[in-house]
Amino acid sequence: MAAVKVYGPPMSTAVSRVLACLFEKEVDFQLLPVDMSKGQHRSPDFLKLQPFGQVPAFQDDSISLFESRAICRYILDKYPEKGNKFLLGKGDLLERASIDQWLEAEAQSFNPPSSVLVFQLAFAPRMKLKQDENAIQKNEEKLGKVLDVYERRLGETRFLAGDEFSFADLSHLPNCHCIVNATDRGGLLTERENVGRWWKEISSRPSWMKVVEMQNTPKAG
Amino acid sequence: MAAVKVYGPPMSTAVSRVLACLFEKEVDFQLLPVDMSKGQHRSPDFLKLQPFGQVPAFQDDSISLFESRAICRYILDKYPEKGNKFLLGKGDLLERASIDQWLEAEAQSFNPPSSVLVFQLAFAPRMKLKQDENAIQKNEEKLGKVLDVYERRLGETRFLAGDEFSFADLSHLPNCHCIVNATDRGGLLTERENVGRWWKEISSRPSWMKVVEMQNTPKAG
Repeated sequence: MAAVKVYGPPMSTAVSRVLACLFEKEVDFQLLPVDMSKGQHRSPDFLKLQPFGQVPAFQDDSISLFESRAICRYILDKYPEKGNKFLLGKGDLLERASIDQWLEAEAQSFNPPSSVLVFQLAFAPRMKLKQDENAIQKNEEKLGKVLDVYERRLGETRFLAGDEFSFADLSHLPNCHCIVNATDRGGLLTERENVGRWWKEISSRPSWMKVVEMQNTPKAG
Repeated sequence: MAAVKVYGPPMSTAVSRVLACLFEKEVDFQLLPVDMSKGQHRSPDFLKLQPFGQVPAFQDDSISLFESRAICRYILDKYPEKGNKFLLGKGDLLERASIDQWLEAEAQSFNPPSSVLVFQLAFAPRMKLKQDENAIQKNEEKLGKVLDVYERRLGETRFLAGDEFSFADLSHLPNCHCIVNATDRGGLLTERENVGRWWKEISSRPSWMKVVEMQNTPKAG
């Protein structure tokens, strides 16, 4: 029985961020289902693990954590010698600062508009909710401007923080994947030359392909 | 001449997050004005420092960085022996994970609704923009729910990540300050017993009082 437990459906972008990190680090884990359609994320037991009632929740031995990006940082700190050892760089201060900078660009600039598009275009129809055309248009425009900055950056470096794949790239995988594969707006990424080249490279990593396989396994979904 | 340069008005919440960190770390810096009303944040020179056209931008010797939370992490990494040495904990893995978790709670759960309230209630009237009543109501409700979680947490620990002031608390200062001092919704914080006690303690730190003094100095504003 693995010590590391992740609670939540692999379809969730935040859950899949943590799964990508665990596969990249080759850390064994158990994925435990949370049936959000039945409101299990609002149950008193789940709220003890994740007080905001969101997925994922995470346990490793006696520690419980929430917030996908913080869980990833913990995994990288706890298992420095496992799997990919360089997701936070090789110890150089400037390299680390660049990774943190593009991680924050993901969290603050890329995530808000891309999450709205993922919700409105991929999840709302499945949940039989009315789509908000105004929000879609506004956020598509916003995301386009963010990706224009990425396009210039990725014309200079192979990955966001430099010439090595890092946690900053990894953190973009879930929302990029949904936009390309579960909406009709994939061109936002694939039609930009450098962003498209970057997306193709990061999404074909074995770690991410394992996450996609879990998402496509009905039992785990 | 200090090596560290911060570009942007101290009234900006993101700029003031970096200033609070620099004062806490006792790192000398120069604050360089960016006149956003004249569009200086969109000038080609500024976009070289901050490609998204936002404040702050930051330089230290030859490195340029953006994103306030990433800049703070860099300051903490670069100057471990200066000022407050324990903003990211004392080296214990679980303590560090708790700090990262509450930092992400700030960035992902607290920041979005509190930023909307700060913009709509404090900045929109000064910029003579029409307030969006629907956004105000929706985000006040959202923020209230987030602060209910904080209220329970702060009933168990003195600060968010534990019993020591950390970068997680620091990162909340700018938006909390604006909500309490520049809007009529301060009660969201001050009328919650534990959140109110926490706010009073973190906002009376000398580092934060220096930031507020800079904000209130017309020349620097």
